[in-house]
Amino acid sequence: MSSTFGENLKLTIFGQSHGPAIGMTLDGIPAGLSVDFEELQSFLNRRAPGQNNWSTPRKEADVPEFLAGIADGCTCGAPIAAMIRNTNTRSGDYDNLKDCPRPGHADYTAQIKYGGFQDVAGGGHFSGRLTAPLCIAGGMCKQWLEEMGIRIGAHIVQIGAEKGVLFDPMCPQLDQVGQIFPTLTADSAEAFQNVISDARSRGDSVGGIIECAAIGLPAGIGEPMFSGVENRIAQIVFGIPAVKGVEFGAGFAAAALTGSMNNDPFVVEDGEIRTTTNNCGGILGGITNGMPLIFRVAVKPTPSIAMEQQSVSLSRMENTPLTVKGRHDPCIVPRAVPVVEAAAAIAIFDMILGNTQAKKRG
Amino acid sequence: MSSTFGENLKLTIFGQSHGPAIGMTLDGIPAGLSVDFEELQSFLNRRAPGQNNWSTPRKEADVPEFLAGIADGCTCGAPIAAMIRNTNTRSGDYDNLKDCPRPGHADYTAQIKYGGFQDVAGGGHFSGRLTAPLCIAGGMCKQWLEEMGIRIGAHIVQIGAEKGVLFDPMCPQLDQVGQIFPTLTADSAEAFQNVISDARSRGDSVGGIIECAAIGLPAGIGEPMFSGVENRIAQIVFGIPAVKGVEFGAGFAAAALTGSMNNDPFVVEDGEIRTTTNNCGGILGGITNGMPLIFRVAVKPTPSIAMEQQSVSLSRMENTPLTVKGRHDPCIVPRAVPVVEAAAAIAIFDMILGNTQAKKRG
Amino acid sequence: MSSTFGENLKLTIFGQSHGPAIGMTLDGIPAGLSVDFEELQSFLNRRAPGQNNWSTPRKEADVPEFLAGIADGCTCGAPIAAMIRNTNTRSGDYDNLKDCPRPGHADYTAQIKYGGFQDVAGGGHFSGRLTAPLCIAGGMCKQWLEEMGIRIGAHIVQIGAEKGVLFDPMCPQLDQVGQIFPTLTADSAEAFQNVISDARSRGDSVGGIIECAAIGLPAGIGEPMFSGVENRIAQIVFGIPAVKGVEFGAGFAAAALTGSMNNDPFVVEDGEIRTTTNNCGGILGGITNGMPLIFRVAVKPTPSIAMEQQSVSLSRMENTPLTVKGRHDPCIVPRAVPVVEAAAAIAIFDMILGNTQAKKRG
Amino acid sequence: MSSTFGENLKLTIFGQSHGPAIGMTLDGIPAGLSVDFEELQSFLNRRAPGQNNWSTPRKEADVPEFLAGIADGCTCGAPIAAMIRNTNTRSGDYDNLKDCPRPGHADYTAQIKYGGFQDVAGGGHFSGRLTAPLCIAGGMCKQWLEEMGIRIGAHIVQIGAEKGVLFDPMCPQLDQVGQIFPTLTADSAEAFQNVISDARSRGDSVGGIIECAAIGLPAGIGEPMFSGVENRIAQIVFGIPAVKGVEFGAGFAAAALTGSMNNDPFVVEDGEIRTTTNNCGGILGGITNGMPLIFRVAVKPTPSIAMEQQSVSLSRMENTPLTVKGRHDPCIVPRAVPVVEAAAAIAIFDMILGNTQAKKRG
Repeated sequence: MSSTFGENLKLTIFGQSHGPAIGMTLDGIPAGLSVDFEELQSFLNRRAPGQNNWSTPRKEADVPEFLAGIADGCTCGAPIAAMIRNTNTRSGDYDNLKDCPRPGHADYTAQIKYGGFQDVAGGGHFSGRLTAPLCIAGGMCKQWLEEMGIRIGAHIVQIGAEKGVLFDPMCPQLDQVGQIFPTLTADSAEAFQNVISDARSRGDSVGGIIECAAIGLPAGIGEPMFSGVENRIAQIVFGIPAVKGVEFGAGFAAAALTGSMNNDPFVVEDGEIRTTTNNCGGILGGITNGMPLIFRVAVKPTPSIAMEQQSVSLSRMENTPLTVKGRHDPCIVPRAVPVVEAAAAIAIFDMILGNTQAKKRG
Repeated sequence: MSSTFGENLKLTIFGQSHGPAIGMTLDGIPAGLSVDFEELQSFLNRRAPGQNNWSTPRKEADVPEFLAGIADGCTCGAPIAAMIRNTNTRSGDYDNLKDCPRPGHADYTAQIKYGGFQDVAGGGHFSGRLTAPLCIAGGMCKQWLEEMGIRIGAHIVQIGAEKGVLFDPMCPQLDQVGQIFPTLTADSAEAFQNVISDARSRGDSVGGIIECAAIGLPAGIGEPMFSGVENRIAQIVFGIPAVKGVEFGAGFAAAALTGSMNNDPFVVEDGEIRTTTNNCGGILGGITNGMPLIFRVAVKPTPSIAMEQQSVSLSRMENTPLTVKGRHDPCIVPRAVPVVEAAAAIAIFDMILGNTQAKKRG
Repeated sequence: MSSTFGENLKLTIFGQSHGPAIGMTLDGIPAGLSVDFEELQSFLNRRAPGQNNWSTPRKEADVPEFLAGIADGCTCGAPIAAMIRNTNTRSGDYDNLKDCPRPGHADYTAQIKYGGFQDVAGGGHFSGRLTAPLCIAGGMCKQWLEEMGIRIGAHIVQIGAEKGVLFDPMCPQLDQVGQIFPTLTADSAEAFQNVISDARSRGDSVGGIIECAAIGLPAGIGEPMFSGVENRIAQIVFGIPAVKGVEFGAGFAAAALTGSMNNDPFVVEDGEIRTTTNNCGGILGGITNGMPLIFRVAVKPTPSIAMEQQSVSLSRMENTPLTVKGRHDPCIVPRAVPVVEAAAAIAIFDMILGNTQAKKRG
Repeated sequence: MSSTFGENLKLTIFGQSHGPAIGMTLDGIPAGLSVDFEELQSFLNRRAPGQNNWSTPRKEADVPEFLAGIADGCTCGAPIAAMIRNTNTRSGDYDNLKDCPRPGHADYTAQIKYGGFQDVAGGGHFSGRLTAPLCIAGGMCKQWLEEMGIRIGAHIVQIGAEKGVLFDPMCPQLDQVGQIFPTLTADSAEAFQNVISDARSRGDSVGGIIECAAIGLPAGIGEPMFSGVENRIAQIVFGIPAVKGVEFGAGFAAAALTGSMNNDPFVVEDGEIRTTTNNCGGILGGITNGMPLIFRVAVKPTPSIAMEQQSVSLSRMENTPLTVKGRHDPCIVPRAVPVVEAAAAIAIFDMILGNTQAKKRG
């Protein structure tokens, strides 16, 4: 059940980095939802590599072919299936990974778990390339949420030690996020790109933090205990390779606050219930309160670096130096931004599908 | 499907804070696992209130009655069911919560979701009291993991702005955690208790950060993408009320590291594969690598505070001040420590039940 | 995951025949549904033993205690939990079942599966007694369906070789089913009771066939392939001990029909689409068509009989005769009738909860 | 969640009859299981149409392309994905099905459920063509079971009113089933083919009954209540279009037996526990007892017939005669035989994956 997500929808991601194709099936989607394929392609292009000077030059078209579930441009009620053929593969680059695992990658744990039968080329099923089908599913969910008035957007708030501006949690500025480089200010974009360029020039890599917001969510979405908004978003977001932390609202900073500072006071405003602050990130008891949903995701530095590293030979059981060949992103954070949006869209759409609100008492 | 967790086991938590009983059913547990009820009670006592001067004086016995699934002190293969009767309840304290929701609590979101039919007394199903049945299930899982050589322990590393000592990620000092107050050093314990006492004296509350470790986990546990160790632990840990963030290994700090710093080099040591650092927290690609599992959890300050707060009357749709009655913990972090251990134990036991490793190739 | 059912709701049945209690948790039920406890008790009484001369004299009150999920007589959105204490137990009767398994019972398969740790008394978790909590859940679902205009009823159509009258599949006569003995005609009731009395006098037992109908179901309920109405009802109905077959509409008899006889022609009647026959039992492609849902269930003869039988000693691995002690129903079919209704109600309510119909095109 | 099956594996079937492709994803399969693609193709050919004179002349290659999950001829631990391109489609034949539903098909129920957005051509997702991907998954599971010593085979025991020979339930003669036409005797094959030819010549169709057996199953497989062998096989088998009934062992005939006839006596034979009869079909309490697993499936006559039928115009809401165009099988039973085997193999493999047996009590 590894690569399947969802309580009301069922998303299965398939494919290995250098296998015949990567793709997804998405079951449980109501009939009659239209898909704007041009917009979907634009969304997929945001995570595609090779489009700028801070990511890997390996270019991929990443144009999905829809195999099922769509008729006349709309969902037809049957499971949706789509795939992307793998074309630009270089299996030779990865020959020795079964014996000599790359630090920070899943090579070693896959070897233990799959006993040598795993598809090791390009990271196999653990490759960041598998986020492309996640974006196919998420890009569609994002469109369907937008038709309900729910918008999702993410941006970079930290690269390496360099920090940028956070969203206003009361009113996240989704429209101010840069199109070319997803930050709130041009200054941050420049500073972040400098950090990335530095890392590249040293044959090293850097990580970062992505912040994501959803606005327009009605109050009452999410279920108590294990299926709350936080639980469900965390479950899917940790499916993005390199994510090592998730926090909602004030998050880890809430630990240092007092209750009187952290509690968000309720007020009536324009005939609606709102809060005057948003430290809870739009979630109380796992359920949306109608304020913007805010969460942040920690992304570790790309484990593939040009510098020589310390590893082992599993066959000879001895230490051995390793130089990872191939060209790799010195920082995957910019490309991960749409992936975080996709993950959030899938989790939110899943929760909305399952939402059963009671009629009001009396 | 709100209060049900697990892929291989199925845990359902039931009860409301002031209802007849709270409890749990736990299905899918193999037959023949013994339960040490005395040890289980000791574990439950660690989260019980009223045992010291930094928590609420509301005393509860919290002695579970087992209704099913146990025969002659062992699991019998049938679902386990246990309950705790609610005795010390003061419903009168909570009369106005449907109309005037407490900031930071789920009163408002429950009112929207359940339309006034929710059981509001004491927070109903959203009460921290529901962590008691979580500890029944988790306390048993912890025992069963210990029989396999897997130990889980947690401690407090921050209360308010006061920070304590972290575990050594290469070798978490589970045996050095304080019995009375769960920290690694007596200095931290004293400092943390002072912060809590200060908050209490001001009628306010504080949050904190809990760190949890599991040692003895074999490599190869966890599934790729959405059922990795991080996904599953995050999903259950966000089921603990007041948790607002989760990070694994270096976590959010990894964002500021370079790849060459963050990657954990492999070495052969005593004929075994290990890493020389543990920034990944024992997880690569969602799968355990045999090093200690490390994660931290951010707990927000108790939302129930004695100070007057700003709220609204839902019936009159106007602002109104609110003073929360009753006695409450100024800091729930100490009592949440065993709950985090319980959650981790349940998630890990679930993953071990479903673990299907391949035989080694050729 | 043995004893848990449901895609949108989650029902877990717990308990062993002679353990402290039997019961159920039912998660995922919307808030605000009222429960008529008196009507529920009447429903439970229909499966209770000891009320007539054709069933076992072991009397049980079977009055459920609700532990959670109900507030002011309505569901409150939290999981519902209820239990029935076991009082009238005779463990001594079952002492030798671990070594000498009863033919037709689960004693042997449980011994293999649970390695001797199973609770053997009274059949443990495999006892027909576990249908009581199924009836608690099903009795509530039945009430909630009735509020939507959906009625479910079942009756006996065969006992031993004696056959009775089937429902009119176009218009099942739910109101004509006997209150004391559930058949459509008094003649059948008398004939069936005679067959049962004969079996009892010979120390033997008999089986039978139950037919169940649901009327008022809207068209469009059920999902294609594996979650159709037939799949879901079959999955739960085989959870009733002794059920060995399920058929829908014409069922096995459809094999002998031609397509022109079996296809149900569509007609417009009173401005509604109907069919002029109902060989499909109200289901096409797994989805309801608005006609009555009809299915039949084969119940094997009670395996507990007074006659001496051939068994084995597992410890000595040799053949040994066995006489099953205790008093048992010569025929469980009458008591199984409400259980079949309960199972159908749970499956249908689950499907209605998950139903996501598209808006009509254009 | 309509088209997804499995508790331990997750199978999703996608595609519409005349869409770009049909296929499946299969997640949760252990690494290192080899696939014999030639044998798989032979298995798929058994359900392919157009190979004889009793089925439809529409020929399809049905050669699956594997997109993921296989490396070097073995499963690699990642989800398996495979598809079959649809080539021989005649959409024009199906133009009026949205307005004028075919009796016995899902046209009407799909129209209600999907509001006109369903893909109607060729029956869309409800087409029998979707059993091809079921056979891809099932054909692989069948191979993996055979490596464990578990063999599955099915044959036809009834076509129309003509009845053939059943398996010996103590020792099902899998090797005697005809290769060309799957019956136990040549006489039955001839008689069945005559019934089919007759139906074809009248422009009508016939149904039948398929019997399936699994031998070599160890005792102890299956879980109590809702995940027993009967529950799981029934759930998947009703996913095959046209199946209207399922029975295990003596099945519906058990209703007419007495307990003393129906109970299978235990004996020790060659140092093993066996039963002297097999009325239970190898299942007691939902769990295998080590005897052959036996079940029968009722298949209704093909709803597509050449004769004029009575239907309605949904747009004009009036009765209208309908003649179904296109060429169709007068009897799908022969082609359904490998599909029943595939379904059984998937369900059994799923249960074996999840099997957690206790060690034997000391």
